[in-house]
Amino acid sequence: MAMPSVPSDSGANATTHVFRKTYRQGSRPDLRVPAREVQLTNGRTVTLYDTSGPYTDPAQPTDVRRGLPPLRDPWIVQRGDTEEYPGREPRPEDDGLRHTSPRGGLRNLDAVFPGRPRRPRRGRDGRAVTQLAYARRGEITPEMEFVALRENLDPEVVRAEIAAGRAVLPANVNHPEIEPMIIGKRFLVKVNANIGNSAVTSSIEEEVDKMTWATRWGADTVMDLSTGRNIHTTREWILRNSPVPIGTVPLYQALEKVDGKAEELSWDVYRDTVIEQCEQGVDYMTVHAGVLLRYVPLTARRKTGIVSRGGSIMAAWCLAHHQESFLYTHFEELCEILRAYDVTFSLGDGLRPGSIADANDEAQFAELRTLGELTQIARRHEVQTMVEGPGHVPMHLIKENIDLQQEICDEAPFYTLGPLTTDIAPGYDHITSGIGAAMIGWWGTAMLCYVTPKEHLGLPNRDDVKTGVITYKIAAHAADVAKGHPGAQQWDDALSDARFEFRWEDQFNLALDPDTARAFHDETLPAEPAKTAHFCSMCGPKFCSMKISRSITEQFGDDGAGDGEDAIREGMLAKSAEFAAQGNRLYLPLAD
Amino acid sequence: MAMPSVPSDSGANATTHVFRKTYRQGSRPDLRVPAREVQLTNGRTVTLYDTSGPYTDPAQPTDVRRGLPPLRDPWIVQRGDTEEYPGREPRPEDDGLRHTSPRGGLRNLDAVFPGRPRRPRRGRDGRAVTQLAYARRGEITPEMEFVALRENLDPEVVRAEIAAGRAVLPANVNHPEIEPMIIGKRFLVKVNANIGNSAVTSSIEEEVDKMTWATRWGADTVMDLSTGRNIHTTREWILRNSPVPIGTVPLYQALEKVDGKAEELSWDVYRDTVIEQCEQGVDYMTVHAGVLLRYVPLTARRKTGIVSRGGSIMAAWCLAHHQESFLYTHFEELCEILRAYDVTFSLGDGLRPGSIADANDEAQFAELRTLGELTQIARRHEVQTMVEGPGHVPMHLIKENIDLQQEICDEAPFYTLGPLTTDIAPGYDHITSGIGAAMIGWWGTAMLCYVTPKEHLGLPNRDDVKTGVITYKIAAHAADVAKGHPGAQQWDDALSDARFEFRWEDQFNLALDPDTARAFHDETLPAEPAKTAHFCSMCGPKFCSMKISRSITEQFGDDGAGDGEDAIREGMLAKSAEFAAQGNRLYLPLAD
Repeated sequence: MAMPSVPSDSGANATTHVFRKTYRQGSRPDLRVPAREVQLTNGRTVTLYDTSGPYTDPAQPTDVRRGLPPLRDPWIVQRGDTEEYPGREPRPEDDGLRHTSPRGGLRNLDAVFPGRPRRPRRGRDGRAVTQLAYARRGEITPEMEFVALRENLDPEVVRAEIAAGRAVLPANVNHPEIEPMIIGKRFLVKVNANIGNSAVTSSIEEEVDKMTWATRWGADTVMDLSTGRNIHTTREWILRNSPVPIGTVPLYQALEKVDGKAEELSWDVYRDTVIEQCEQGVDYMTVHAGVLLRYVPLTARRKTGIVSRGGSIMAAWCLAHHQESFLYTHFEELCEILRAYDVTFSLGDGLRPGSIADANDEAQFAELRTLGELTQIARRHEVQTMVEGPGHVPMHLIKENIDLQQEICDEAPFYTLGPLTTDIAPGYDHITSGIGAAMIGWWGTAMLCYVTPKEHLGLPNRDDVKTGVITYKIAAHAADVAKGHPGAQQWDDALSDARFEFRWEDQFNLALDPDTARAFHDETLPAEPAKTAHFCSMCGPKFCSMKISRSITEQFGDDGAGDGEDAIREGMLAKSAEFAAQGNRLYLPLAD
Repeated sequence: MAMPSVPSDSGANATTHVFRKTYRQGSRPDLRVPAREVQLTNGRTVTLYDTSGPYTDPAQPTDVRRGLPPLRDPWIVQRGDTEEYPGREPRPEDDGLRHTSPRGGLRNLDAVFPGRPRRPRRGRDGRAVTQLAYARRGEITPEMEFVALRENLDPEVVRAEIAAGRAVLPANVNHPEIEPMIIGKRFLVKVNANIGNSAVTSSIEEEVDKMTWATRWGADTVMDLSTGRNIHTTREWILRNSPVPIGTVPLYQALEKVDGKAEELSWDVYRDTVIEQCEQGVDYMTVHAGVLLRYVPLTARRKTGIVSRGGSIMAAWCLAHHQESFLYTHFEELCEILRAYDVTFSLGDGLRPGSIADANDEAQFAELRTLGELTQIARRHEVQTMVEGPGHVPMHLIKENIDLQQEICDEAPFYTLGPLTTDIAPGYDHITSGIGAAMIGWWGTAMLCYVTPKEHLGLPNRDDVKTGVITYKIAAHAADVAKGHPGAQQWDDALSDARFEFRWEDQFNLALDPDTARAFHDETLPAEPAKTAHFCSMCGPKFCSMKISRSITEQFGDDGAGDGEDAIREGMLAKSAEFAAQGNRLYLPLAD
């Protein structure tokens, strides 16, 4: 295989709209929290949360072959509770290459990430180096201060939420490149984008590009769900270039190491894979430890059985061995590993419903109760923990999911896939699920795993990734507004102001997707003057309701409406006379 | 202007998937209710609600120059309560042509609809010929029987819901071409698609094509919101070719007749326009009679003032004349007109919020109370009535909208635009609003007015119309499932069965949009065998959770799971041994 031609332009700079990367300065010089500042034509600015990393900062040249700067290194080193060590030697099978492959067992060195040399780091003497451990000790880490500034909240709120297990701050000590973010119901609802090649299609460069592209549009975390060849190498490229936390399902890689034979999986193979990924810097891992042997038969009468890949692998393993899975029996040992790197658990819902007919059934909730037990065990080991949720759930059954999860898992952050509210629309499952995602986000879900239009049909390409992220940012933001998150509605208000005042350029630049907004407008009215004209193609110049309405505002604005109904009527009479005196001109001249 | 080149293939037959048009026979030979039958590869069939009209029936050749057959004519004539009459003579200004235009005031005869000659019909001696009047008399009309068969409900339920004013069956006696449908909370949630040219862009043929295209994808009604030139002629083409009820906002055309000068509008001009449209066959009309003079100042402090076109026109009129609008003062006279044709009121929400900041405010709910009063007046005149709703509403304020409307308007059907749950995503407002639409549909809204991706930016093209309709069909169906509408979930179940059993062709054909589902699948795995293979590109052949899950179902199927936990475990042991004896093969051969 040739050197992967990772594009030098990651695509992050390919948009044309006007915003400026700004930073809020924290208590130490190296603590600078990025934000996106939209400069309006009326001289004001609007500052938005920004997940895109250094790629959108012209002052920070980036090179995907070198990776992003390890921002957090000084913070981690200064805590003095970690040590570098030689680490595990990479092996051919890490990339899915057989010992007996025609390449003679040699690693596919061409694709090796060429960036800075690094040795893995872990907690000294097995101690917990997790944000949860620090928070419980009352310590506000730079990571906590970072997310507090990012969310406009008191750092103490961040610390308290993490300490209580109500929020997680995924930040592996071996992923110093990230800009810290937080997942918890008191914070902005977050969005995860899944990427990953499979045995059938896709390549390393495509996946790296999807990662930068997804974060460009607002993905707060990215899961690398690669299967097939080059898993290790793909992940290395992604991690070294990712400004957001990276999640994985280690089971997928472990299965590759045993040639896809689930029954040959073992704790040893799995443990080795987890350590490999901890050392690389994976920030959170989905672990399907809640699939118990006795739950498997509960799925037999389902319409769609087990649809989680991890869940079905573990179910097959349980059947083959007729015993509880190694994930469950070795769970405490797993906690010991994760706490040494500060890898966050994402307790997988292996038995989530795959059709609305199967929603909220016995299998699903039996597993949820086990996830509740595992949450408590993980917390005892000071490992940060969130819990995954469905899946396919009709609207009237959604609330029960978040309510039960919060009760059973003692308010651990909920992280749901959708849910899809109907099964009838393959090709549009970003929408069937975006509906459910907005609702469950409003009701307390902390992170939403996106669904792309290709769900159930194929692997998402670049456009699908963008559509999935944008759809889920809509769901997350609608939830933030409905939850009354401080400041969330300011964005809506700024855009609505621009719309009402015919500031088209501001409307585009404030849009979640400025490129599409501008392109759609220009499709009908491409001429430059139309962007400042007081009408648009929906109504034409004579018919514009916004314009009529603006003239009403001008008549009854702040000097009339606030003075009680009588005063208003008097004002109206006077203003109506004025109106008539002007010749009843309802429509301001276009030049206005 | 040349003869409009209305496409001979309306686009309705342009799709490739396999379904058969079927008809359910009613109590009389000419009462045949269309449905769409999907033939599955396992020999079963699934029957779906179908709005596409004769265009998708190969046995019924259609010609847009002749129009659809007037199916309901015998039903209307046999009731014996209507009469034909000469009708109003069309005038140049009906099509927005000035008397002093360079064309010398001649009508644009080239574009005149060439189909069968017809004379308008109306109730004899001013009597009410409305479905409401018949329902109150205890009569089950062929129209009611038609919708009962269409929705799998007892005709008496249909009659009772109409009689109580909880449902409307829009069916102008001058639009005999329609296949009757019903709008009410006990029935399937309906979707309206807006089309219409404007002064800036679009043409007659495009609008007719959008109508057939929208109904092809599931639009239950279509509103023609044309402004500018050729309004009358465009509407004639649409009506004569539409299998679904057509709605309008007569105010738009009336305004054209007074050269866009709102203050020159009068009851006479408006009344003349309403009669013109009643005679043509418009089935329901949006009337913004709830915009009272004293409400206008309530909008002055809003973020986005008045965003309804009709609302802003009436507000401007009220200001110019300093009196209540002619829509309000002549409302009873309007009722007398509409009852003679069975045109349904859609009481417009002229003061709906145009930004989430303005949701549920005093102006909005003041108007709603007036709409409640007008609903009672309309009912006294035996005019069918529904009520329009917002708009832009954050999720936590949506439920109050439907609850208040149902209370204030005595359960008259609610017909909402979205609502949009956030303002930040121009270019994606089908999604921001699809979220709100699904929720408000679940809570009792009877019809959802679609929003396309072009909302706020430009006029929808053919692709936008399709995206808008599909998005809203998803919202409506998700609502039907959540409401527990009888039979709604069968569609989901059939598709999920096909998915679980790897019947790819069935999955495509059952999809809301078979073309897109198939295209997305083929993008990754185009080869024909892949459509029957037991895997797809998401996981590849080794990793498929559905396949693993299916082998679990085969082991613990109906002979195991039903017999209590002990029996299950015994069965498991036996089955596990069997599993091992087969060599622990988790993955069935691909040929399987």
